[in-house]
Amino acid sequence: MPDALVVGCGLIGASVGMALRDAGWDVLLRDEVPSIVGQAVRRGAGRPWEPGDRTTVALVAVPPRVTARVLAEVQQLDLARTYTHVCSVQSHVQAEIEALNCDMATVIGGHPLAGRERSGPGAATADLFVGRPWALCPSAATSQTAQQDATSLVRDCGADPVHLSAAEHDASVALLSHLPQVTASALAGSLLGSGELRAGSRPTVEAGTRHRPLQLAGPGLVDTTRLAASDSELWSQILELNAAQLAPLVADLSARLHDLSEALSTLGGPATPRESATALAQVRALLRAGNDGRALVPVKRGVRSEAFAPVRVSVRDEPGRLAALLADAGAAGINVEDVHVEHIPGRPSGVIELLVGVGDVPALCRALAVRGWAVLELEG
Amino acid sequence: MPDALVVGCGLIGASVGMALRDAGWDVLLRDEVPSIVGQAVRRGAGRPWEPGDRTTVALVAVPPRVTARVLAEVQQLDLARTYTHVCSVQSHVQAEIEALNCDMATVIGGHPLAGRERSGPGAATADLFVGRPWALCPSAATSQTAQQDATSLVRDCGADPVHLSAAEHDASVALLSHLPQVTASALAGSLLGSGELRAGSRPTVEAGTRHRPLQLAGPGLVDTTRLAASDSELWSQILELNAAQLAPLVADLSARLHDLSEALSTLGGPATPRESATALAQVRALLRAGNDGRALVPVKRGVRSEAFAPVRVSVRDEPGRLAALLADAGAAGINVEDVHVEHIPGRPSGVIELLVGVGDVPALCRALAVRGWAVLELEG
Repeated sequence: MPDALVVGCGLIGASVGMALRDAGWDVLLRDEVPSIVGQAVRRGAGRPWEPGDRTTVALVAVPPRVTARVLAEVQQLDLARTYTHVCSVQSHVQAEIEALNCDMATVIGGHPLAGRERSGPGAATADLFVGRPWALCPSAATSQTAQQDATSLVRDCGADPVHLSAAEHDASVALLSHLPQVTASALAGSLLGSGELRAGSRPTVEAGTRHRPLQLAGPGLVDTTRLAASDSELWSQILELNAAQLAPLVADLSARLHDLSEALSTLGGPATPRESATALAQVRALLRAGNDGRALVPVKRGVRSEAFAPVRVSVRDEPGRLAALLADAGAAGINVEDVHVEHIPGRPSGVIELLVGVGDVPALCRALAVRGWAVLELEG
Repeated sequence: MPDALVVGCGLIGASVGMALRDAGWDVLLRDEVPSIVGQAVRRGAGRPWEPGDRTTVALVAVPPRVTARVLAEVQQLDLARTYTHVCSVQSHVQAEIEALNCDMATVIGGHPLAGRERSGPGAATADLFVGRPWALCPSAATSQTAQQDATSLVRDCGADPVHLSAAEHDASVALLSHLPQVTASALAGSLLGSGELRAGSRPTVEAGTRHRPLQLAGPGLVDTTRLAASDSELWSQILELNAAQLAPLVADLSARLHDLSEALSTLGGPATPRESATALAQVRALLRAGNDGRALVPVKRGVRSEAFAPVRVSVRDEPGRLAALLADAGAAGINVEDVHVEHIPGRPSGVIELLVGVGDVPALCRALAVRGWAVLELEG
């Protein structure tokens, strides 16, 4: 039976334990807080580590700032054949581990691209890593055995191992994770200083329809600022460790927004037709670059959005309608990939969007229409 | 029977027609392209306007650049008692309408905060405006009658009328809609210039696990760049018309990102402990301001997110499981507000998240557990 030691039984550690146990592994658990081990055991993440126990892989799942120290301690105690961790930034931790005179042949950094807004073993789930990428970052000294041990662990968590160097990893997450994070934070911060909010309510025409701050906010603002709700303490640790990679990306984004603000000033003020035309071309270029960049983003994991299409159905807003709709889709043999509900409490109807394979759209529309559903046409 | 003339039968115009017909209005349709009127009639948006027809309200739903001209033409022909439009920017259009010597007593600007990623009458739906805010922007000259006529139309579309001045409207959408749009576009544009993408695939350890560009992208990047897919031609018109309001907001965001890049450079390079501490405090302050700003965003229309909570259930990935789960929730008498499916094709299981009222969480967990569902615990 394959076995592993999980050191640190928070959300990530306990979820790894649960996933590996489901895959038939023997999992041992350690945490500096004994009650956390108890919680993880009750979640089914494994059994408590006891002196003398030694496993194939030790996975260190503790906060970034203490990862290197804890990994070195565990290696010093010879608790496993291979050592990995789950740090969001790799180069810095790898250098720290080297500086602690660890045997680098048995060490391979790791980073599961998964998480939740909640923390602790109570939020753990065996499915946390299913279908998610999990970066594995060997150093030049990492042995083949260590690479194989870590890859087995990752695959048995249901994740997709992605092998790359620590430097490649850090450049990648700076662009794909850390830059979106600080952009969302800065944008959400813009809402604080605005007259929009300071001014409060305004004089109005009719009772009950007063203009309230953010009343005109739509789903675009909601999506664009979602990351701004992230744990600011954890993120300041992450950004600190990857600061050198992130700084030029933020500077570049800032410069492009600065150029845009100049173009907008030209368009909003007195300008010659030639100046206005140049400024408008700049604005359009930024929007088009955004179109091109967005087209590169994998909207569904591993599958571009073009493979799926929505079918929209207007339904009465009553309990059970969503279930009935999905039952009818299932009866037609169609697999619904995702569901979006535009549901307004107190309104007589709403719109449910079912995401299905593009090839299934006509059959689903027909099947639902036959069963009396108000399918919204997409083509005129 | 109340009546309206819709001028321009694209997505918005045809959707207004369908909504008003559902509410019992007589709706007349005009478009400079006769086949578009035909499509809108077939969608059930109304009947073709004929010479001599005159209605209570005329709604002009044409692109921003031609809105004022078309509205003036329709008023010149005396086709209605009240005239409104659906332009995303108000002040500029109001000034244009005044400059065309219109009777301003019968004119009231409007802007429904609703839309879709698709355009044309084929994408129209009677539910498009349900529960959405719809700004109404009277000028100083707008009569009470015009205000009442427009308000009736908005309410009968199912929308919530929000009365405010054109200047207030434009300041509000600059912050809440146009700033997020350009931020998302600039961020998505960052993906284009990166070495990450230019470099293509990298040397790897193991076949089948090669590092591909954007492979480490997660849902944060997906959400934060969603708006970048918007129609860049339409948006360059919108941004041009609201440039004066938007420019200082973009400049301010750019400046804050510039300061952040300096702080990150300090953290990533050689610095005294005092310099590093100051820089880290700056990073943390930006993240915390983001937390505070995000807390102001109405996540569900009119209802703060705290009123709802998710219940997560691990399910086998088979057709019909989602329907069965919702049927059991419905049988327990619980109204599911929204559904999120973490569904990975080809995997044996996924996680379904049901959003319900906070007070319903314990009852739903119990009801589902009794029926044999694998409810994921949230507290340890």
